[in-house]
Amino acid sequence: MSAHGWTTPAREALRVGAGFRLADLDPRETPGYEGSKTTGAADLADGVPTLDDLQERLFAQSVAGTASGSVLLVLQGMDTSGKGGIVRHVVGAVDPQGVELASFKKPTAEELQHDFLWRIAKRLPARGKIGVFDRSHYEDVLIGRVRSLAPADEIERRYGAIERFEADAADRGIRVVKVMLHISKDEQKERLAARLDRPEKHWKYNPGDVDERELWDDYMAAYQVMLERTSTDVAPWFVVPADRKWFARLAVQRLLLAALDDIDPRWPVADYDVEREKERLASS
Amino acid sequence: MSAHGWTTPAREALRVGAGFRLADLDPRETPGYEGSKTTGAADLADGVPTLDDLQERLFAQSVAGTASGSVLLVLQGMDTSGKGGIVRHVVGAVDPQGVELASFKKPTAEELQHDFLWRIAKRLPARGKIGVFDRSHYEDVLIGRVRSLAPADEIERRYGAIERFEADAADRGIRVVKVMLHISKDEQKERLAARLDRPEKHWKYNPGDVDERELWDDYMAAYQVMLERTSTDVAPWFVVPADRKWFARLAVQRLLLAALDDIDPRWPVADYDVEREKERLASS
Repeated sequence: MSAHGWTTPAREALRVGAGFRLADLDPRETPGYEGSKTTGAADLADGVPTLDDLQERLFAQSVAGTASGSVLLVLQGMDTSGKGGIVRHVVGAVDPQGVELASFKKPTAEELQHDFLWRIAKRLPARGKIGVFDRSHYEDVLIGRVRSLAPADEIERRYGAIERFEADAADRGIRVVKVMLHISKDEQKERLAARLDRPEKHWKYNPGDVDERELWDDYMAAYQVMLERTSTDVAPWFVVPADRKWFARLAVQRLLLAALDDIDPRWPVADYDVEREKERLASS
Repeated sequence: MSAHGWTTPAREALRVGAGFRLADLDPRETPGYEGSKTTGAADLADGVPTLDDLQERLFAQSVAGTASGSVLLVLQGMDTSGKGGIVRHVVGAVDPQGVELASFKKPTAEELQHDFLWRIAKRLPARGKIGVFDRSHYEDVLIGRVRSLAPADEIERRYGAIERFEADAADRGIRVVKVMLHISKDEQKERLAARLDRPEKHWKYNPGDVDERELWDDYMAAYQVMLERTSTDVAPWFVVPADRKWFARLAVQRLLLAALDDIDPRWPVADYDVEREKERLASS
């Protein structure tokens, strides 16, 4: 992979390590990247053929039954942080046949009758696929914590449960890439205002968004705890400053590329006699 | 919608009506379209923003809870006819969040314990979504018939069952767009040979493809019966000549555009007080 404007690999520059403090990160920063919106867009376009090639190789393995791994991109972030844009502009650049997208809304009555990971486990990506979670089990320690949707000891229990769940997923060959899209409160205000200003964007706005916004500091505190307690070696968190959409998209593309590069999927070798098949085909 | 190289709307030019004979259609034809590969590619690109806009409006309705309709694109065709290319290049141009893709393989043991429509019904698109079936319940009257995978009277029963199933789906607001991608036996030979020639395409080849190829005439006969018996007013078949990939993609895009145009999805109207929300947001 060529590096372009990257001075430090995204995976290093954005990774949550010991002592990370969300409050110290400026959502307008572009850690590890020295470039502008223009070079960022060019670098994003440059990454597409490689992403496409790696994804097709992985998909080929799934068809051939030789895939051992998959990728799971987990997207979290406050309203308007750009999760949908990542799905559209980063993930949307590859063949939809190789992507399994799961969008987690408010749990249904049936889901609430089960452990919080029940609905999540069902949507883990198949071997050879790229899974994308638009929101995830982390809602259960974010809004779950902020709004006290479960008893305190149950919220507490979940951090450990998540760690075991993800360790098990990693053990089965799922590369878990967890991304928090980090926007500032001011940027959110602008984005919400833009939705209210244009009638064709009204559907994207919900009065509840302002209610959640009033709890901004509580959410940031819940994110901080989440990052501290669930950023592990096998499933680290990456905090992507997202006030600049172009940077967020570029960064997530790089993180996906790195995960696929780790898997290094090779084209499957034919499990049939190629020369013999050429003959059979010729005489058919 | 602008017409470009179309002399007759795709929906009319490609529709299977009374007396349609598959054997009379040349897979290299471009019915209703006077143009070249070059103009075809330009027209395909021209269609993307409109498709994108219509799809986003439909998706907006699904989010707002006001969607009354959805679209279901059913893709059938012999191996190498280009179903995957349609998914990639036509459907892949819109936001993946609004698409529900189902790829039907050989039924599982569990699926075989149920009626053939059981697994199909589960994958019908939600309101406001574009569903895509890569293969479908029609396999059960195609390979099912050619290979006698079920008793003759059961195969016979299925045509009527499909008609009722689709009439019911249409009744519930699903616009069913059924496309047979029609390639010639010679073109298939070339496409299979190309897969054998390139190691990175070997995974796309299966020795079983030649076995099915040997039954070409039986398949064409099964397709003919299928077209005669299941092309209805509410769920007509469109046969798209597919030896020219550019035409097949363009034609399917036009069929999708026409279906979405019928729905004519409008941006949802805010169910909250916009001015009041502007104030709440401003003071938040």
